Amino acid sequence: MSVGFIGLGVMGHSMAKHLIKAGYHLNVYNRTRSKAESLIAEGAKWMDTPQELAFESDYVLTIVGYPEDVEKVYLGQSGLFEGSKPGQVFVDLTTSRPSLAIELAKQGKERGVIVLDAPVSGGDLGAREGRLTAMIGGEAIGLESVRPILDCFASNIFYHGSAGAGQHAKAANQIMIAGTMTGMTETLRYAKASGLDLNKVIDTLSGGAANNWSLSNYGPRILKEDYSPGFFVKHFIKDLGIALEAAQEYKIDLPGTKLALELYQELADAGLEDAGTQALIKLWW
Amino acid sequence: MSVGFIGLGVMGHSMAKHLIKAGYHLNVYNRTRSKAESLIAEGAKWMDTPQELAFESDYVLTIVGYPEDVEKVYLGQSGLFEGSKPGQVFVDLTTSRPSLAIELAKQGKERGVIVLDAPVSGGDLGAREGRLTAMIGGEAIGLESVRPILDCFASNIFYHGSAGAGQHAKAANQIMIAGTMTGMTETLRYAKASGLDLNKVIDTLSGGAANNWSLSNYGPRILKEDYSPGFFVKHFIKDLGIALEAAQEYKIDLPGTKLALELYQELADAGLEDAGTQALIKLWW
Repeated sequence: MSVGFIGLGVMGHSMAKHLIKAGYHLNVYNRTRSKAESLIAEGAKWMDTPQELAFESDYVLTIVGYPEDVEKVYLGQSGLFEGSKPGQVFVDLTTSRPSLAIELAKQGKERGVIVLDAPVSGGDLGAREGRLTAMIGGEAIGLESVRPILDCFASNIFYHGSAGAGQHAKAANQIMIAGTMTGMTETLRYAKASGLDLNKVIDTLSGGAANNWSLSNYGPRILKEDYSPGFFVKHFIKDLGIALEAAQEYKIDLPGTKLALELYQELADAGLEDAGTQALIKLWW
Repeated sequence: MSVGFIGLGVMGHSMAKHLIKAGYHLNVYNRTRSKAESLIAEGAKWMDTPQELAFESDYVLTIVGYPEDVEKVYLGQSGLFEGSKPGQVFVDLTTSRPSLAIELAKQGKERGVIVLDAPVSGGDLGAREGRLTAMIGGEAIGLESVRPILDCFASNIFYHGSAGAGQHAKAANQIMIAGTMTGMTETLRYAKASGLDLNKVIDTLSGGAANNWSLSNYGPRILKEDYSPGFFVKHFIKDLGIALEAAQEYKIDLPGTKLALELYQELADAGLEDAGTQALIKLWW
């Protein structure tokens, strides 16, 4: 069975490697070909366009940067839909707009193709270790056929409903993280200003009702001044923008998320868009 | 050895019970005497004033509502300091102003009394089960002598430094929780608006980088429409006010914490000050 894979960034590259290791015949395409070289050396076959990749593959997985990139890969010239065949399943792993996921599923249906939205969380480490969480929207029968492929890199697969539901679940995830990241950085800012031992503060808070993943994982990295990206500032800005745009469609206000986006935008404006999200503390330290 | 205990609210009552069970001779005082009755039935001795209680006790523990109450109990007429004797250790478990903790330690020192600030976290359940976290500020030697008493109801005791440091650590704790509570309620608000299964969203998010205590503990309570207080809205408003007041002294801005306080104030203004903090969702549902 052949699997097409588009998008060989930090996340995609690790995921593609897991598929090769599992024995899938892999067709790959990426905007920058050089990022595919090591996979080609391991047996992956280079495709010149998404169209060709779709034509040559039973399943197609995509994980690219922005919703605009998703649109181009699926709907653009020489895009996936130009090479699609009825019965295929396409899976978009990009964190993207729920409305776009719905549009892709609709256009897929017209061609007899199931398109699932399946954004993942777990970062570069989760991708490397093959234990990502995938949040799925789209036709359930499509998930059942593609599940063995997703199992190669995802340890948790949650089906959230019809097309777009996976993107909505991921947006909910990022809204939650907006709260833990702003809370965590304000906590450290206050603790430092008041002269506390920051390691001890992290220890104390981690044992009780203040406990959260961001504090336990990013707190110690901040104390080591490690601002390398587990997850890029620029991608978090994209994700929060998507969440707030969808919220606006529902006419609901998310003031904490809006604040987080403003702070991260300020950070990006200061030149830190390629840092990890824990660099938020640099607004203040 | 006799221990004086002042403040028999939900938290204090449970803590006092643990001390009786551990065999301490307990002297109690409370603004409302009726709340002491069951403890008196178990052997605690009623004291008519904090002054008398201090005079009759080797150690004194206090956990009252607001900084104003702390001031009155320690510094007021017939207050603790009027009955104090050199060599005593007083421990204020109230979440209160760091500057007041420093003032009490100073006035204690003039009388030969060590005053520790030791705010706790873990809520009513933690108090009942004797597994609170205590954050200590003040003279370390005072902590060593009072530690066996604190061990009766606290499973984690963190020493954070000189007087006020315990209050600062607790403020840091509440700043963190401000982030998880606003994030959690915005997450559920968004998830509901977008038509997701909220139980599944909580499950999905709890397994990854969005994981936090507020979501795992308060999320399910919200879905059961259980807004009973583990921790009162009015007390969280007090705590966030204390944190922001201290932050202002350091001239640092905590925009997420400020937002959380505004939202909780809005909730209290709507009549929900005696609900649990998870009732924040009621602003929106």
